Amino acid sequence: MSARRSIEVVDLVEAAREGPGHPGSARAVARLISLVEDASGVASQTLREVMAALSPYVGHAHVIGLTGAPGVGKSTTTSALVRELRQSGKRVGVLAVDPSSPFSGGALLGDRIRMTEHASDPGVYIRSMASRGHLGGLSWSTPQAIRVLDGAGFDVVLVETVGVGQSEVEIAGLADTTVVLLAPGMGDGIQAAKAGILEIGDLYAVNKADRDGAAKVRRDLRSMLALGTRPEGAWRPPVLAITAQSRDGLDELAAALEKHRAWLEESGALTARRARRAREEIEAIAVAALRARWQVQGSDRLDELAAAVAGGVLDPYAAADELIG
Amino acid sequence: MSARRSIEVVDLVEAAREGPGHPGSARAVARLISLVEDASGVASQTLREVMAALSPYVGHAHVIGLTGAPGVGKSTTTSALVRELRQSGKRVGVLAVDPSSPFSGGALLGDRIRMTEHASDPGVYIRSMASRGHLGGLSWSTPQAIRVLDGAGFDVVLVETVGVGQSEVEIAGLADTTVVLLAPGMGDGIQAAKAGILEIGDLYAVNKADRDGAAKVRRDLRSMLALGTRPEGAWRPPVLAITAQSRDGLDELAAALEKHRAWLEESGALTARRARRAREEIEAIAVAALRARWQVQGSDRLDELAAAVAGGVLDPYAAADELIG
Repeated sequence: MSARRSIEVVDLVEAAREGPGHPGSARAVARLISLVEDASGVASQTLREVMAALSPYVGHAHVIGLTGAPGVGKSTTTSALVRELRQSGKRVGVLAVDPSSPFSGGALLGDRIRMTEHASDPGVYIRSMASRGHLGGLSWSTPQAIRVLDGAGFDVVLVETVGVGQSEVEIAGLADTTVVLLAPGMGDGIQAAKAGILEIGDLYAVNKADRDGAAKVRRDLRSMLALGTRPEGAWRPPVLAITAQSRDGLDELAAALEKHRAWLEESGALTARRARRAREEIEAIAVAALRARWQVQGSDRLDELAAAVAGGVLDPYAAADELIG
Repeated sequence: MSARRSIEVVDLVEAAREGPGHPGSARAVARLISLVEDASGVASQTLREVMAALSPYVGHAHVIGLTGAPGVGKSTTTSALVRELRQSGKRVGVLAVDPSSPFSGGALLGDRIRMTEHASDPGVYIRSMASRGHLGGLSWSTPQAIRVLDGAGFDVVLVETVGVGQSEVEIAGLADTTVVLLAPGMGDGIQAAKAGILEIGDLYAVNKADRDGAAKVRRDLRSMLALGTRPEGAWRPPVLAITAQSRDGLDELAAALEKHRAWLEESGALTARRARRAREEIEAIAVAALRARWQVQGSDRLDELAAAVAGGVLDPYAAADELIG
């Protein structure tokens, strides 16, 4: 049974890949992401098979994170950017991470509507991913879904996240290049300082550049960015002006993305970032695997230790020592 | 050296405790929290000694979390609530968790000013704690500082956190009773739904109840709370009206806190919550201890594995398996 499933996974990966002798099947890509999303956790055999089968093919895509507060025009910008990237012949995979509603827990429908613009284009794959609760964190399966698209041979993997809570910080950890989108009329200056976006952007784009206040947003943002000190040779994030609706400035955004990618490669930052990301990913998986192990095998032991701590018999440090042996 | 420090820690705990033969020294309390805050991490011998020395005395304090968006009047409410609790003879420890500025990383000075009102009262101890970065998460040392105040014999430990990002969710995990503070004129209805506060409050208090719109905030909040389903016998969070500035409604807030505490005890929820909290604390410490171990002893190994993953030789799951052996 496991052997049969292994063969299926390998076949799916072959079907999903694009290139000579490989069909680049959107259905196979969709199926792989579903397998990864439906996996029960780190111990899932299917998840492990998918990841193992993909691993020779990953590391080529430019992973771009696009984040910004609700209302800045992320959907329109994503769609316009996809069109721009397609014009230069790039295959683009999009993961749209929607915040869960606190009541429904489900993903919003917005991107399904957007999808229609690129629905007939085989060089574009768009997928909606649920987020992890009300703080908008990325779901556990986001890095795995990126890996599927990367392994399938997409040149660019674009992850669109709503900048509320922690998703914007998480995406900066996963992406090669993080684009922070702003817009006039939203008190952006203060928002920027508050939400910590000054630390995460490789590129800033002020959307709705035709509106009042856009120039001021750019000016304020530049002043704030100038306050931070950056070492010699470091990347200095540009602050672009775009109007996604009319596609003004999208060519410059695409060029800036290329420029950042080139800088990442030349400076060695790409290798360093990806090694750090791999470290964090390995650690996170190892920790999740240990947690799962404690909860299954040692559940009674953990309950006993918790009762001892709650009752003042043991302190939590001594209890942790006993747990890890 | 270690033996000498152990004796010091035990002496400090004895000096910090309040009761017959125990001076309840604020200096000793301050010193213990500093030891805990300055500890280098889970491996810190001092931290472990402090926790071990406190463990027979903890579990008696009523741990109350007070959270709300900036501007709702948390500082004024904390101060008024402390005064109210003092009138019924309770000793109160306050931990004020301030958000770090993204540039300075330091705590704000607000609570040092507030402190002056209770500065001469030996039954009140107020301490400012730094938060963990721009998302306002609680610092690693917050649960330990709560444990110090609990072990020192404070009847109530009040943790005041700014409701931005994750601190409000974290405090709900640490507190026996979580109070969510709101105020009119801040679009609270929408804010409440967005920020997920509907899930975390045991009590809601609408401050500035004398202002326009306060009644509407209460009404809206009640409607939203009514949308969620709660099992039979579950606690139904009251929505109180207070004006902290003039101390109106503070007696009712104190009474509601007492009522929740009584419900926690009678229903068995207190034991269940504290056992769950102890479980999470033990797990978190065990995980941190393992991470620290990997980073010190196995740093080269983790780097090797990360390089293999980044280079497509290994997938992160296989790498994690190798790490945990």
